[in-house]
Amino acid sequence: VRPLRADAARNYDRIARAAREVYAELGADAPLDEIAHRAGVGISTLFRRFEDKRALVRAALHLGFLEQLVPQLEEALADDDPHRGLMSALEAAIGFGAAEHRLLAAASDLGARTMESTAEVLATFTALFRRAREAGVIRGDLVDEDVPRILAMLFSVLATMDPSSGGWRRYIALVADGLAPEAAHPLPA
Amino acid sequence: VRPLRADAARNYDRIARAAREVYAELGADAPLDEIAHRAGVGISTLFRRFEDKRALVRAALHLGFLEQLVPQLEEALADDDPHRGLMSALEAAIGFGAAEHRLLAAASDLGARTMESTAEVLATFTALFRRAREAGVIRGDLVDEDVPRILAMLFSVLATMDPSSGGWRRYIALVADGLAPEAAHPLPA
Repeated sequence: VRPLRADAARNYDRIARAAREVYAELGADAPLDEIAHRAGVGISTLFRRFEDKRALVRAALHLGFLEQLVPQLEEALADDDPHRGLMSALEAAIGFGAAEHRLLAAASDLGARTMESTAEVLATFTALFRRAREAGVIRGDLVDEDVPRILAMLFSVLATMDPSSGGWRRYIALVADGLAPEAAHPLPA
Repeated sequence: VRPLRADAARNYDRIARAAREVYAELGADAPLDEIAHRAGVGISTLFRRFEDKRALVRAALHLGFLEQLVPQLEEALADDDPHRGLMSALEAAIGFGAAEHRLLAAASDLGARTMESTAEVLATFTALFRRAREAGVIRGDLVDEDVPRILAMLFSVLATMDPSSGGWRRYIALVADGLAPEAAHPLPA
């Protein structure tokens, strides 16, 4: 049984990897047989590994999180400088959103945003904001509830531009100036 | 012919007004006969005045713009203090989004956002930002292209909260600190 299970796992991984590529290129309407073709498997193998399109998009997105975003966030957490760590994590997260915007839009169309991945990212950001606040390098009147809203604001600008332009970095810088302790006028509750 | 045309205009206005109320209460799925009922007209009159649901939502939204937002923006433009003018306009616009979030969601579902209204609001904000920049009360490195992105960021937080909580004011204050000239680190292009 062992070799068969290893085969199944390898196929799962190949298909998720191909789906990540194909959705990034073609968006939510990407044909499944193109994904199977690129993974080097038959369409029946694809259907055996993934019950539906939503499961496939979720796996592709989760792969992107694991391979691209999570290592960058871990690096940011390991940074000795709490401000630099927070800023590089923001850059990594919005950069991930920019690079994977078609896959994310496909996931959103299918209602397939992986909540586990999102919760993990949010927990890391909460830790990064706390650490920066305790070090006095961002304003002291921020609370944990601000973290998802600040991320939502920064992600929202992606929809207003060609995400590959990198123009979103400008709004990280603008918000960073709003987060600075020396800029702070007290926030309303 | 005159009295008939006045009648038609009165019905149009009544129906748009009722639609604004009913969509705010019940969202995109509000039944059309409830709207006709509340307007005091028959359903056939409603269909004579509005070719489809999208036209009705668009008229309701346009009425909201005209009656609520536009006067507040005009007041903000008339304010002698460019910083206070800009801030009260931001508060008015996001507050309008908060008060009318169901009508806006209905419009968005139906693809009925009124582009004319949006363009008008954006033009007013562009003027307010320019005036504040020229007066030196906001950072000098902002450009016109930043205006829709800053508005998009502030609107995006509404989706993360109960809009009636007023919690969105906190993010106007945060962004305002990022706009302050004394906070400014140079923005990337």
